[in-house]
Amino acid sequence: MTDSDVARIGVLTVSDRASQGIYEDRGGPAIREYFANVLTSPWEDVSRIEPDVQSGLEAAIKEMVDEQGCCLVITTGGTGPAPRDVTPEATEAVCDKLMPGFGELMRTVSLRAVPTAILSRQTAGIRGGALIVNLPGQPKAIGECMDAVMPAIPYCIDLIGGPFITTDSSKIAVFRPKKK
Amino acid sequence: MTDSDVARIGVLTVSDRASQGIYEDRGGPAIREYFANVLTSPWEDVSRIEPDVQSGLEAAIKEMVDEQGCCLVITTGGTGPAPRDVTPEATEAVCDKLMPGFGELMRTVSLRAVPTAILSRQTAGIRGGALIVNLPGQPKAIGECMDAVMPAIPYCIDLIGGPFITTDSSKIAVFRPKKK
Amino acid sequence: MTDSDVARIGVLTVSDRASQGIYEDRGGPAIREYFANVLTSPWEDVSRIEPDVQSGLEAAIKEMVDEQGCCLVITTGGTGPAPRDVTPEATEAVCDKLMPGFGELMRTVSLRAVPTAILSRQTAGIRGGALIVNLPGQPKAIGECMDAVMPAIPYCIDLIGGPFITTDSSKIAVFRPKKK
Repeated sequence: MTDSDVARIGVLTVSDRASQGIYEDRGGPAIREYFANVLTSPWEDVSRIEPDVQSGLEAAIKEMVDEQGCCLVITTGGTGPAPRDVTPEATEAVCDKLMPGFGELMRTVSLRAVPTAILSRQTAGIRGGALIVNLPGQPKAIGECMDAVMPAIPYCIDLIGGPFITTDSSKIAVFRPKKK
Repeated sequence: MTDSDVARIGVLTVSDRASQGIYEDRGGPAIREYFANVLTSPWEDVSRIEPDVQSGLEAAIKEMVDEQGCCLVITTGGTGPAPRDVTPEATEAVCDKLMPGFGELMRTVSLRAVPTAILSRQTAGIRGGALIVNLPGQPKAIGECMDAVMPAIPYCIDLIGGPFITTDSSKIAVFRPKKK
Repeated sequence: MTDSDVARIGVLTVSDRASQGIYEDRGGPAIREYFANVLTSPWEDVSRIEPDVQSGLEAAIKEMVDEQGCCLVITTGGTGPAPRDVTPEATEAVCDKLMPGFGELMRTVSLRAVPTAILSRQTAGIRGGALIVNLPGQPKAIGECMDAVMPAIPYCIDLIGGPFITTDSSKIAVFRPKKK
């Protein structure tokens, strides 16, 4: 196994208050705990906490993908309607392709819990060899959103040339279509 | 209670024929009746009827938000595939942020009634301190779409700095997450 | 019946390998077979096989609509996250209006079969008097996606000035709202 077999996963917490230390980051730890629990292939995280500033978020995602070699970047926070919520805009700006199915499915799943799920503007996209996925900021929404999209993520990363990711199928069964 | 506590709601009927008086506006009255029935906090409408011309629709939404101080603008009509249907384009052009969850949910709900619901291109977005939501033109679709999105609208308006809107919970139960 | 009553349907297979003859086109035949099975009004196909090159796909769609007079163009393939998948980008580039409800519904339906359905970026839109719809490349997904959107397609084509399309209602019941 070479270093390139280790999946590097970016975890980007987007929060003015958490970035200033006023508020404890709970989204980042929830995401790392999720992967620690479900992944069986080797991985390591590249974690950052940034304020709700579009240019800074774009720079953070670019650094994670282009410099740190992440094949997956999960953001948490900054997806609502408030003036400072700009995570989706930053994501769209740095992605080559958008993946509308991720946001659609995560909103559908979150709607079963709260009607305000439609206020989340979370999206996903591809930058080079990395998949970027926005999650809501609420820690309790992170697990339900990840459970919804995780079955499709390893195959997506296969298709963009990343490492082969496996999971504990008793927790999350990933799906890969049979080769034609 | 100051004037700023009164929620001003823009109601924009988009129809070539209704704007010329050839056709009675039925969408605008249906929207006003909806709010009269469910809202318990003070409100007043700012109503306009405009033809299907993108520049005129953009001007009407801007006037309602920037001059009239509306915190919510509901449009009806002009969301289909026909050449003159340009309400979503006008909405996107004047909004700072788009809210894709509104259109997704309204189409999902309308699909239970008619398969042609996928032809509606209705969207929503934020302009300054106002939420703009496109509804279909058919009066009977207005109630089902409003019932779907109304539970999330007051909290959305809280997040963008607008007045505190309340409803008769026996008709529509609005949802506000508990403060962290 | 004049020639203009014959619905011309573009069938665009998007595949590097099929366009070079390395791989048999299975998507194009599946689409033609679908229409042969459900349509009862006169139609004829205009079929092309193109590699995954955005400029070539844009040219093919334009030729089908602007030169060949197609009222409907169905593409198959090129909607995934891989670097060469550019069918949605080509579609957006040549369309006057986008129809987000088509992609949303097709992903929802495909999700019942496979969790990787969220990786399909398929969209739809209007160019002049034609509806363009992206389908996935997998032949088995073509029938389920067409069954989902076909009930709304004839009315959509009515709204953009195309021929009156009818189907065998024992196979697919199309829906047209009653005139107001």
